[in-house]
Amino acid sequence: METNTTTLADYLFTRLRQLGVDSIFGLPGDYNLNLLDYVEPAKLHWIGNCNELNAGYAADGYARIKGLGALVTTFGVGELSAINAIAGAYAERAPVVHVVGTPIRDSQDSRSLIHHTFNDGEYQRFDRMYEHVTVAQTMISDLRSAPGEIDRVLLQCLVHSRPVRIAIPDDMVALRVPTRNLDSKISIPLPARQPKVEEEALAVILERIYNAKRPMILIDGESRQSQILDEVDHLVRSTEWPTFTTGFGKSLIDETLPNVYGVFIPAHKPFVDSCDLVLHFGPHPSNTNTYIFQTIPPAATTVAFAATTVKIDKQTFRDLPAKLFLPQLIAQLDSAKIPAYKPDLPHPTTTLAAPSALTPTEKVNNASFWKKLTPFFREGDIILAETGTAGYGANEFILPPRTRLFKPVTWLSIGYMLPAALGASLAQRDRAAHGSEPGRTVLLIGDGSFQLTAQELATIIHHKLDVVVFLINNAGYTIERCIHGHDARYNDITPWRYLKALELFGAPTEGEYAGHAWTVRTWADLEGVLSDERMAKGKGVRMVEVCMEMLDAPKVLLNLLEKQFPEKSGA
Amino acid sequence: METNTTTLADYLFTRLRQLGVDSIFGLPGDYNLNLLDYVEPAKLHWIGNCNELNAGYAADGYARIKGLGALVTTFGVGELSAINAIAGAYAERAPVVHVVGTPIRDSQDSRSLIHHTFNDGEYQRFDRMYEHVTVAQTMISDLRSAPGEIDRVLLQCLVHSRPVRIAIPDDMVALRVPTRNLDSKISIPLPARQPKVEEEALAVILERIYNAKRPMILIDGESRQSQILDEVDHLVRSTEWPTFTTGFGKSLIDETLPNVYGVFIPAHKPFVDSCDLVLHFGPHPSNTNTYIFQTIPPAATTVAFAATTVKIDKQTFRDLPAKLFLPQLIAQLDSAKIPAYKPDLPHPTTTLAAPSALTPTEKVNNASFWKKLTPFFREGDIILAETGTAGYGANEFILPPRTRLFKPVTWLSIGYMLPAALGASLAQRDRAAHGSEPGRTVLLIGDGSFQLTAQELATIIHHKLDVVVFLINNAGYTIERCIHGHDARYNDITPWRYLKALELFGAPTEGEYAGHAWTVRTWADLEGVLSDERMAKGKGVRMVEVCMEMLDAPKVLLNLLEKQFPEKSGA
Repeated sequence: METNTTTLADYLFTRLRQLGVDSIFGLPGDYNLNLLDYVEPAKLHWIGNCNELNAGYAADGYARIKGLGALVTTFGVGELSAINAIAGAYAERAPVVHVVGTPIRDSQDSRSLIHHTFNDGEYQRFDRMYEHVTVAQTMISDLRSAPGEIDRVLLQCLVHSRPVRIAIPDDMVALRVPTRNLDSKISIPLPARQPKVEEEALAVILERIYNAKRPMILIDGESRQSQILDEVDHLVRSTEWPTFTTGFGKSLIDETLPNVYGVFIPAHKPFVDSCDLVLHFGPHPSNTNTYIFQTIPPAATTVAFAATTVKIDKQTFRDLPAKLFLPQLIAQLDSAKIPAYKPDLPHPTTTLAAPSALTPTEKVNNASFWKKLTPFFREGDIILAETGTAGYGANEFILPPRTRLFKPVTWLSIGYMLPAALGASLAQRDRAAHGSEPGRTVLLIGDGSFQLTAQELATIIHHKLDVVVFLINNAGYTIERCIHGHDARYNDITPWRYLKALELFGAPTEGEYAGHAWTVRTWADLEGVLSDERMAKGKGVRMVEVCMEMLDAPKVLLNLLEKQFPEKSGA
Repeated sequence: METNTTTLADYLFTRLRQLGVDSIFGLPGDYNLNLLDYVEPAKLHWIGNCNELNAGYAADGYARIKGLGALVTTFGVGELSAINAIAGAYAERAPVVHVVGTPIRDSQDSRSLIHHTFNDGEYQRFDRMYEHVTVAQTMISDLRSAPGEIDRVLLQCLVHSRPVRIAIPDDMVALRVPTRNLDSKISIPLPARQPKVEEEALAVILERIYNAKRPMILIDGESRQSQILDEVDHLVRSTEWPTFTTGFGKSLIDETLPNVYGVFIPAHKPFVDSCDLVLHFGPHPSNTNTYIFQTIPPAATTVAFAATTVKIDKQTFRDLPAKLFLPQLIAQLDSAKIPAYKPDLPHPTTTLAAPSALTPTEKVNNASFWKKLTPFFREGDIILAETGTAGYGANEFILPPRTRLFKPVTWLSIGYMLPAALGASLAQRDRAAHGSEPGRTVLLIGDGSFQLTAQELATIIHHKLDVVVFLINNAGYTIERCIHGHDARYNDITPWRYLKALELFGAPTEGEYAGHAWTVRTWADLEGVLSDERMAKGKGVRMVEVCMEMLDAPKVLLNLLEKQFPEKSGA
């Protein structure tokens, strides 16, 4: 008989704490109230969100900074409201644990017609729906296997860096389970090495490296989930080869290094094609991460390192976890035989960061705004650029070391970035509590996207997070206008007085955390805001409404827009 | 060869128009822009929402007033954001058509790694998820069957009064289809009569009626979807039997009739049990619609008329659509043999609508607030009382004829009522355009619920709808506090300055549609607001913040709350 026991809820929350979760998101609901009683006793910080979709987005943002995020919702209504956020975490590999408080087993077994069901006794529909957006699920019902089930599912979350769902009936929350598993933290088991595969792959890769005349490196976003950023950083610095990132990979390498040339855009394609070796880390080749498949390096010259496979042209080496294999590759590399390649490429610092002289009274525009903003960023900042003009504009930033950029990758669910900023900022604060350097969170978001999840600003304000919001007011969904329907009414939005958001959402009017708001129309306005002490050194939420023309956008989008005017572009 | 053709998009939108949809909700997205080009040419009014969940809720609210509602979202991100609203429409039988713009067939067939997917070539996940929350689905891919598929799915929506999903690939929107089906409007086919079943059922029911000494009527909410309200109204007026409704059924009968006694609450149970016949129309016996199963009439004395079945004690007569069967029953009823029963029951007008004299300086409270509000309602009003204290408080209203009440029924997704108010109010306006009397929409909502979907107030404001909002500010989720955790931090919400919502969300500051806001703390304040001309006769959005104590609630909830204090309730 076990002597050391704890409640099932405490077991779960202790596991989450062990894995680095300090703050947990969600909303109360009839079937999770008892569960929530155990959050704070387990030393987790409860963050009550304004709605469940926002809670899901926040947990995703937290997970991408802290390595794991979690939310608690109620059965049915709560979990379905959050499901789009969980789907996004699945698509872009954010490890999120979704804990759902479900009805007592008596109700479920008797098919009782209770609320938050379809009044038909079917309780499993939500389980089935969640199977499509999570990498593992457990619906706890038997106490004997409960701790093991929780551990199994959490491990899958870590291994795949994808969301999981844990459903706990209200009547099991306080039941006791043995604590013995808790003595060892869950971690991804080291796989057995595959000497034959390693040897073959190493031979091919080393030969390619030593024989290369024009090698380069391409860093994509799944490098982070594969936990190979240190190895990639080492290779970029030691080889000094020309290095690009994708949009998803941007900020995963120090962009101020002389051999790092920013985001691989279609204009770089001839250069990339001219290379005879591309080391490609963490590939995520969605259309939106590859400029509609234009910036995928040629298969014949590419060595692609995914989570557990290495792909070289038509050859795929499986069961080679990059986290294990890259250190071996680095160890075997004979530095004397690493070719040098310093092509004459313009560094982004020369082309991007220096906007031509701007007339102070001139209205701000996309052509220069993103360049002008670059000096505002500091080491340690987390920058989030929402799907839309901001997402494309962010490609023009040259980021200081130790920054993190969130950009539209593949899921592209507008409204994501604001709650993600809440999550990321909390993760930043929680990390600082463990000794990391503190930092700011900077959100860049369009007016259309802001409207979807605006209320979560209240949570950011309430928790006194240091968040700067640049809201691009361009009267609607400009990115959609560029794609189709440039003047269509369906691309309009309702006109808000955006800066009133601070008042509605409860920002203090005085003191250290007083909310500050500015409107920027001209370059002089922007200059004024960026040099304002409250922006540079202030605390709390600061909000800048940046007014831009309805059809002004970064170049890539303007190119799309032009296709709507064949007579003009043909002229 | 067909000579009369139109585009597939126009075919769909024309069908919706034919079925009474005048306004359609949604958001643009990359895969529905071309589809949206056809909305306004089909003479549908496009209502751009702030987010997709809100669009779904609005379409549900519209459907419950106008008989059918529709929304258009984009693939993946858009439809998953809306899925909780669609699930609610399924649970409570609101006929909503969810149109999804999906990627072109080339992308789908080639499993292209495009955005809004999981970057794995699987395009069918969302179809599968939606099967759980819709009564019929079609993923259009073959032009030959497309019109028939649309018609099939729309028919199912009408028959079951439940949501359906129609997915249209972006490359099929403008393809041409024959118009010939459009010559006849879709309608629920009259079923063949089942003389034997009818005869048997009629015999049993007539015998029960003629032999009854203490008969009564109970009207539940599915009566509306069964389209038997006229027949029920006839029976209530002609028999003069004591009549109750459930919460879901409230407002479906004129509550000022002398034999209508309001909502069947547990206190009425002895009376109902004393009856020897209960004609029960449109049963929806969920726990929340039956005071946790306390107000279900005894099976032995009940004749329950569901959509297509009549249940009498242990006997179930199937394939008897109430819409067909009730007129037969009425025709056969020998009025001379209908028993009279006028029990000595207190009419709610005597117990509810007259709050005892209130001290003007006293703070408003749940004990009297709902009674005090009753005289404010007028014929033609739509009243929406959100899950929470408002939902329970609304049971105390005595509503004028021709009003409609939305109350928490079974899905109980907080945040629903505000966008539902948008939908209902638009439906009210659209009906008025067809000759109905215009009316006001009155929303009663708690602060917690308001936060979930607050931004949709902007859409209400933008479309100049006549909506009065009573926002109960009681510092958090009071209904949850009553259930569990009366002072738990997880039942707190962030403090907002609610009346600033009108400014943020763009209410005009002057003119006919200027936004007006009041704060009510005392009975004198309430008196002042209710007698204010701008409230009584004004237009546009008017918002009243009603401040109540954190643990003040309608009686039913206070009873729950007391269970948290055993020492007190035991004293």
